Amino acid sequence: MFLTRSEYDRGVNTFSPEGRLFQVEYAMEAIKLGSTAVGLKTKRGIILAVEKRITSPLLEPSSVEKIMEIDEHVGCAMSGLIADARTLVEHARVETQNHRFSYGEPMSTESTTQALCDLALRFGEGDEDSMSRPFGVSLLIAGHDENGPCLYYTDPSGTFWQCDAKSIGSGVEAADIALKEQYRKDMTLEEAETLALSILKQVMEDKVTANNVDIASVAPTYHLYTPAEVEAVINRL
Amino acid sequence: MFLTRSEYDRGVNTFSPEGRLFQVEYAMEAIKLGSTAVGLKTKRGIILAVEKRITSPLLEPSSVEKIMEIDEHVGCAMSGLIADARTLVEHARVETQNHRFSYGEPMSTESTTQALCDLALRFGEGDEDSMSRPFGVSLLIAGHDENGPCLYYTDPSGTFWQCDAKSIGSGVEAADIALKEQYRKDMTLEEAETLALSILKQVMEDKVTANNVDIASVAPTYHLYTPAEVEAVINRL
Amino acid sequence: MFLTRSEYDRGVNTFSPEGRLFQVEYAMEAIKLGSTAVGLKTKRGIILAVEKRITSPLLEPSSVEKIMEIDEHVGCAMSGLIADARTLVEHARVETQNHRFSYGEPMSTESTTQALCDLALRFGEGDEDSMSRPFGVSLLIAGHDENGPCLYYTDPSGTFWQCDAKSIGSGVEAADIALKEQYRKDMTLEEAETLALSILKQVMEDKVTANNVDIASVAPTYHLYTPAEVEAVINRL
Amino acid sequence: MFLTRSEYDRGVNTFSPEGRLFQVEYAMEAIKLGSTAVGLKTKRGIILAVEKRITSPLLEPSSVEKIMEIDEHVGCAMSGLIADARTLVEHARVETQNHRFSYGEPMSTESTTQALCDLALRFGEGDEDSMSRPFGVSLLIAGHDENGPCLYYTDPSGTFWQCDAKSIGSGVEAADIALKEQYRKDMTLEEAETLALSILKQVMEDKVTANNVDIASVAPTYHLYTPAEVEAVINRL
Amino acid sequence: MFLTRSEYDRGVNTFSPEGRLFQVEYAMEAIKLGSTAVGLKTKRGIILAVEKRITSPLLEPSSVEKIMEIDEHVGCAMSGLIADARTLVEHARVETQNHRFSYGEPMSTESTTQALCDLALRFGEGDEDSMSRPFGVSLLIAGHDENGPCLYYTDPSGTFWQCDAKSIGSGVEAADIALKEQYRKDMTLEEAETLALSILKQVMEDKVTANNVDIASVAPTYHLYTPAEVEAVINRL
Amino acid sequence: MFLTRSEYDRGVNTFSPEGRLFQVEYAMEAIKLGSTAVGLKTKRGIILAVEKRITSPLLEPSSVEKIMEIDEHVGCAMSGLIADARTLVEHARVETQNHRFSYGEPMSTESTTQALCDLALRFGEGDEDSMSRPFGVSLLIAGHDENGPCLYYTDPSGTFWQCDAKSIGSGVEAADIALKEQYRKDMTLEEAETLALSILKQVMEDKVTANNVDIASVAPTYHLYTPAEVEAVINRL
Amino acid sequence: MFLTRSEYDRGVNTFSPEGRLFQVEYAMEAIKLGSTAVGLKTKRGIILAVEKRITSPLLEPSSVEKIMEIDEHVGCAMSGLIADARTLVEHARVETQNHRFSYGEPMSTESTTQALCDLALRFGEGDEDSMSRPFGVSLLIAGHDENGPCLYYTDPSGTFWQCDAKSIGSGVEAADIALKEQYRKDMTLEEAETLALSILKQVMEDKVTANNVDIASVAPTYHLYTPAEVEAVINRL
Repeated sequence: MFLTRSEYDRGVNTFSPEGRLFQVEYAMEAIKLGSTAVGLKTKRGIILAVEKRITSPLLEPSSVEKIMEIDEHVGCAMSGLIADARTLVEHARVETQNHRFSYGEPMSTESTTQALCDLALRFGEGDEDSMSRPFGVSLLIAGHDENGPCLYYTDPSGTFWQCDAKSIGSGVEAADIALKEQYRKDMTLEEAETLALSILKQVMEDKVTANNVDIASVAPTYHLYTPAEVEAVINRL
Repeated sequence: MFLTRSEYDRGVNTFSPEGRLFQVEYAMEAIKLGSTAVGLKTKRGIILAVEKRITSPLLEPSSVEKIMEIDEHVGCAMSGLIADARTLVEHARVETQNHRFSYGEPMSTESTTQALCDLALRFGEGDEDSMSRPFGVSLLIAGHDENGPCLYYTDPSGTFWQCDAKSIGSGVEAADIALKEQYRKDMTLEEAETLALSILKQVMEDKVTANNVDIASVAPTYHLYTPAEVEAVINRL
Repeated sequence: MFLTRSEYDRGVNTFSPEGRLFQVEYAMEAIKLGSTAVGLKTKRGIILAVEKRITSPLLEPSSVEKIMEIDEHVGCAMSGLIADARTLVEHARVETQNHRFSYGEPMSTESTTQALCDLALRFGEGDEDSMSRPFGVSLLIAGHDENGPCLYYTDPSGTFWQCDAKSIGSGVEAADIALKEQYRKDMTLEEAETLALSILKQVMEDKVTANNVDIASVAPTYHLYTPAEVEAVINRL
Repeated sequence: MFLTRSEYDRGVNTFSPEGRLFQVEYAMEAIKLGSTAVGLKTKRGIILAVEKRITSPLLEPSSVEKIMEIDEHVGCAMSGLIADARTLVEHARVETQNHRFSYGEPMSTESTTQALCDLALRFGEGDEDSMSRPFGVSLLIAGHDENGPCLYYTDPSGTFWQCDAKSIGSGVEAADIALKEQYRKDMTLEEAETLALSILKQVMEDKVTANNVDIASVAPTYHLYTPAEVEAVINRL
Repeated sequence: MFLTRSEYDRGVNTFSPEGRLFQVEYAMEAIKLGSTAVGLKTKRGIILAVEKRITSPLLEPSSVEKIMEIDEHVGCAMSGLIADARTLVEHARVETQNHRFSYGEPMSTESTTQALCDLALRFGEGDEDSMSRPFGVSLLIAGHDENGPCLYYTDPSGTFWQCDAKSIGSGVEAADIALKEQYRKDMTLEEAETLALSILKQVMEDKVTANNVDIASVAPTYHLYTPAEVEAVINRL
Repeated sequence: MFLTRSEYDRGVNTFSPEGRLFQVEYAMEAIKLGSTAVGLKTKRGIILAVEKRITSPLLEPSSVEKIMEIDEHVGCAMSGLIADARTLVEHARVETQNHRFSYGEPMSTESTTQALCDLALRFGEGDEDSMSRPFGVSLLIAGHDENGPCLYYTDPSGTFWQCDAKSIGSGVEAADIALKEQYRKDMTLEEAETLALSILKQVMEDKVTANNVDIASVAPTYHLYTPAEVEAVINRL
Repeated sequence: MFLTRSEYDRGVNTFSPEGRLFQVEYAMEAIKLGSTAVGLKTKRGIILAVEKRITSPLLEPSSVEKIMEIDEHVGCAMSGLIADARTLVEHARVETQNHRFSYGEPMSTESTTQALCDLALRFGEGDEDSMSRPFGVSLLIAGHDENGPCLYYTDPSGTFWQCDAKSIGSGVEAADIALKEQYRKDMTLEEAETLALSILKQVMEDKVTANNVDIASVAPTYHLYTPAEVEAVINRL
């Protein structure tokens, strides 16, 4: 079985006899090696929370960025190859700035997500900006526009879905089950913070501290929590 | 048998000794993995209906778009790789807008379909916009122009056919048999809606709800049904 | 034997030790999988007739185009990969229109055929418009110019020949034998119509109807027969 | 032995350990599969004669062109892949026309031959006009310029030689022996015509007729014989 | 195990079935073959120290540059392929100069690091400046800007982290353990010098001399220690 | 032994583990298959002499050019692939003409040789004019400039040496031994002519005639001997 | 062991699992096949000396150039593929001339060396001027600028080191040992000449003569010794 698979799985854009693109599927495996991230939508805004793997006490925790601002009304959490994520985020930042400049208004969350995925989809095409392989990263994109708060989930194939709540990374299975059981659409932002951290706590090997998780809200503007604010949420657990 | 086939089936544009292009055939397999879509032509207009696989209750059903508007008089249902479909639809939207701008009138359904297939055909040619592999998607294109309502079906080879009724996706065999038995050219739009949903019901594993199917009509303009409108059709079943 | 062949038959432009280009030969096999087409020259003009494989009663027969107009005085019948044929025909239409624009007169049938074959020959050369593989299609090109009616036959190698009568496609062997026995240079257009259909009837598995064959004449301008006109010829059989 | 050869014979421009370029040698094999052509130089001009393989009585013999005019004072006979020959001839026609335009006089036969071979030599180099493989064709180029009549012979490596008489194609061995025995520098044009046809007669499987051979002279301008003129030479045999 | 790995590890941008990019991992091995470098942050500035492998007494020690100035407020220590490091440093020098020219102020340490990593990330993409393989080098980037002293660590994947103290190269394991045990945030610059050299002493095979180590500080400007200054630190050990 | 070699010998620019470039070495084998050429320097000028393989009495001997003029003061003899040599010579002709045009004086023999070798060296680099494989040819370049007569020898690696006397081609071993024994720096031009021909006579299978050898002198201008002049030298043997 | 190595050693820019670039290592083997060269630094200037392999008495010794002038204050000795060295030297000559033109002063020895190595490093990158494989050559670069005399040593990886004395080529091991034993920083230029030749004498198979070695000094300008000057040094041995 593996033998025949291996005939088709190295060409970036080669279909297997069953119609599968294995390089995209392998890129998705890269995400399962990544740290866990969680996103939740509430009426007031979105909560993003990520695990940060601080492999050494000598590392500056704030430099392990797994949540990034795209525009003042959009941010994202990531899991997988961080350098790939940075390329996508940088691309999205340029797109949102251009949109503001051209139209005098912020880009909608969906258009921002679409712009990211357009780039992700064109791997192997030799375009400027595109990569010669799939981007090995998944994003949870949180935004707030005239449609209110929105949470999107993207994968290496360049596909995206809108979600109420979603997790990515190595803890995705346990985390998604927990979200299905405990998430409610009418949660307050504070309840969402608590649920996000309690889920990370469940899937992380280390004890949760203000150093090894990051939390951000887009409600309605992007805000990365200070260590003190994270500590406060931890204390509520 | 499989051994000799495997000598020819990875080059995107390599003929096998029997004159076959295997990568195109494998791309067609990608469609058989996709969700089922159905299209029916009536005198008043076209009905498109698709199955949406909502893998999690946390997913926003409306963000799983398998029916898209191309222009106000043309829409399409898709099965296969959704990100590929989005590239084709985006291309068609630009073409139809350019046509309106240049000629002051809507592009005909056939020309729109042809423009889509011209792009699909040129996989592996290194052109701008084209892909380095066949597009792994089939479309049902519904339009309404001076020739009245038209339904086209496209496949990954860049070929298209005009149909009275057609299904694509994993349920294609059962659905096409049902269409041959139950479709009539003189159906009303309402009868077409009911037949489309009853066929989806037959091939879907889950119970049909307003969340996991989409219906659209082009009669004569594109309209995606609201959940309430879908619910009304379900109740007629 | 097959083993050694397989060493040389995947490179598009690789000679085998015997001086053969296998990918061109395999493309010719694609044509043997295609539907049958017949062309006959009479003093008044050319008759083209093709089998249309209507795989489903839900398909609109007129959308299965296997005879196409190139210019008002040139048309062609095709067998093989229809999407490839469409690219060649589109190229020829541009060439004939450019010729009319530049010289104020129609392009000769031979020049039109040459323009088509120039494109077909340059597969694998990376030119704009050209393909990375041979075109998997044969054409019967019917024209009427100052030299009177002309019928050309092209193959995937980019070679062409002028003929009095010729068939292509899966029924080529039986059809060519029938043509040699029954074709006469002094046939009337009506006799040619009848012979063409009687030959298709012989090689087709299904009963000949106005739905599954197309007839066109170039005498001296291109005319695709209406279903009623086809029915009339069928009735003469 | 064949095993080791096969390690080096598919790269277009790969030397074997013995310093051979196999793809060029294989292209020469393509010519041995071709029909036979003969060229003879007389004091008054050159005679070219070719076998035409008319595979069907429905084929128009005049459309099987194996002798072509390059300029009014230069013509050529070919053997091998006809579509390749046409590319070379087309290139030479442009070169000779440009020369006339730039210098107001005809291009010499040698320069014309050199221009052809420059193109033939650069296979695999990715230049505009050049091919990605050797041209699978040999030419006999007949011209008449201020140096009088000249006959050149070219092969797929881009090399050329001037000859008094030469044959190419599947009958080359028997035909060259006959030329060595029977050709004389002081032949008249009529004697050359007769010798050319008697040699073709010897190597052709079919009976020689005005339909399956072509004759042309460059004496001093290019002239392709009419069927009646060919018939006259046949009658002299 | 190694057998299956070897199927995926030569393509620069090919994912293995587990989602790994082996060429990047192999490039990281190149760094483990390199000499050891150490960086430490103090309140006043950063200390960088490197081992220099002087393979021959005839070599001029000062020409073995493993610490380089990028701008007057940024320097870096390197381990791995020195020629690759030089390309990255040269790129960073141009970026920092351009920044000074455009904005009239020094580039921040983080932006400088990001610019380096943007180049490192795009290996295999065929861009101008980028390489066709991962850069086989790790850098410790020391800077001093309006945020005070900063130390960054980069790897061949184009990822970077901010650190209080970090080592790279063949002695990384022992050196990082020593740093964790002995580094304190409130060290003086002098204590940092001593700790850096004592760690190098521990991992180097040869005796530490002013010839085979280099020390530099960025406090707040880049300064490469003279042999005498190095000697002074050695004497403090 | 041959097995391991074959792992490295097809990539044009791949080093073997011993640091060898096999494709260059194989190209040198192509020269050992070529006809023999000899060059000798005398005080008055250079003598070049080549064997011409006239495979058929119908071939025009003068069209087998193995000695060519580059400029009026430079000529060359060649062995190996003649079409490759012609490309090099054509390049050198353009260079020498440009030099005359720019500087109003002839290009020196060394600069001419260098220009040739610059082109030869850059095989496989995809430059305009360069080849995708090594040039399979060696040249003996004879020139006469302000430094007097000069003889250069080039090989497929793009390297050149100045010589007093040198042979190339299939007879190189015997011919070089003869040159070492019989060549003297104080030979007259006539003695050099005789020695050159006597060496060719020794290595050629056929009897030496005015048809199958060519002689040229550069003393101080290029002169290709007429058949009568060659005959005169033969008679002196 | 060799088996697994051979999986990684043909891609120009492929890392092996241990982080090695084998094509660079193989290029270094090419240098071990080359003739020996020696460089020594004295207070007054640099001495370069090389072995010249004169394979035939008919070769002009002065045309075997293994020491070349780059600018009037810089020269270099080489070992390995001479044609590669010439490309590097030619590049350096243009750089030094441009520098003089732009800044009105000579380029420093280090900058000249860096410019050479920048080109050497970028093999396989498809840049203009760069090669598709590592340059198979090592250089000893001798210069004299405002910092006094300098000697640099470069290898195929594009790395360089400053040295007091260094040897390259097939005799490198014995020669470097001799240098370590006998070289002194306070040598006079004459002592350096003698030591250089005595080392070459030790590693050369043939007797040292004015024909088979070259000596050059840069003290402070480049000077290639005449045969008489070389003879004088030989006589001092």
